[in-house]
Amino acid sequence: VSESTVRRLSLYLRVLEELAREGEATVSSRALASRAGTTAAQVRKDLSLFGSFGKRGLGYAVPPLAEQLRAIMGLSRKWRVVLVGAGRIGTALFEYPHFRERGFEIVAILDDDPVKVGKEWRGVRIRPGAELEAAAREGGAEMAILAVPAAVAQRLTDALVAAGVRGILNFVPLQLQVPEGITVNNVNMAVELESLAFALQAPAAHSGRPRSDKAI
Amino acid sequence: VSESTVRRLSLYLRVLEELAREGEATVSSRALASRAGTTAAQVRKDLSLFGSFGKRGLGYAVPPLAEQLRAIMGLSRKWRVVLVGAGRIGTALFEYPHFRERGFEIVAILDDDPVKVGKEWRGVRIRPGAELEAAAREGGAEMAILAVPAAVAQRLTDALVAAGVRGILNFVPLQLQVPEGITVNNVNMAVELESLAFALQAPAAHSGRPRSDKAI
Repeated sequence: VSESTVRRLSLYLRVLEELAREGEATVSSRALASRAGTTAAQVRKDLSLFGSFGKRGLGYAVPPLAEQLRAIMGLSRKWRVVLVGAGRIGTALFEYPHFRERGFEIVAILDDDPVKVGKEWRGVRIRPGAELEAAAREGGAEMAILAVPAAVAQRLTDALVAAGVRGILNFVPLQLQVPEGITVNNVNMAVELESLAFALQAPAAHSGRPRSDKAI
Repeated sequence: VSESTVRRLSLYLRVLEELAREGEATVSSRALASRAGTTAAQVRKDLSLFGSFGKRGLGYAVPPLAEQLRAIMGLSRKWRVVLVGAGRIGTALFEYPHFRERGFEIVAILDDDPVKVGKEWRGVRIRPGAELEAAAREGGAEMAILAVPAAVAQRLTDALVAAGVRGILNFVPLQLQVPEGITVNNVNMAVELESLAFALQAPAAHSGRPRSDKAI
């Protein structure tokens, strides 16, 4: 299963949940594709990787397919997340209601800013970075959001790994070194903007269609 | 040229600039690959798309290769950028020094928060969203960073397109509709976290190696 597929599944799920809220009982692959910015053939191909959904000519049953996608994506359960870095990015993520609705629960927050240490965010006390391993372990954290200065990122990553964290969403512009079995998803806004520059300065090769196989 | 390639080029450039600051005159494809989290063969393959760089056995000359990559990526020039939405994400991006160093200049800022409208950020006055098309046009904006509520995102996108903006870095969890020739790069943190959940709940198929073909 490719990364692009997983990203599209995430989009399909969002669309299906919107349709459910709108009271739609069924959706065609074409309508689902249109709202997710892809093609009907792509939708059918992506879903066929995980089983047989939908009935020919009838489309997909919206709430059951949403539920199946949540199960496939690992989203029918809670995930305990440690937030490492409570700066702007960390705060934006912490306050994003979608994360909680999706079952991502922040169980620990670390930051070295003396103004922040000791404060509570929705009942979670902010602790200094030196306590990361203990905090992650006590909270039973399985995932981490890493949004800290580059200089301390690897050291904090090592602490996360030592505490048993298996997945890291990394906002630090650095290639983290992790052992086998640890998944790192990197988000780098500089690279995003630079790839936009590349697309705009080479219009012949790159313009003409918005990217549809990526996260939205 | 694939998106993954462009992302790796962006990484190579960052590594080369680090090496230049450290005073290194040359670098092997193996050392460059190691710092960018990929393989020497991948580095050679990526660079070969754009010409013949480096000398067999001598490696790459660091400052010239950095300069060539900047040119290839469209980063040897300035880009005028309009910032649409001055919330947490918009602010984080505005304050990120790397963007200015890279030649991305914020020429206009739009936000509907009455507390923010009229304020100046580094000499750029924040204007209400209704003035987006005029502001983008006056600033000669070529790119936009879109970080606004979903409900207004498409309308503001239409205004950006009308103003002549050709590239949008989109933080809104929505598939923007744009005409041919407009590039949209989507960044969605929910999708990133969900794809991490997918990887962790399906360990057999997905764990074992951190992703190296993505932005860091």
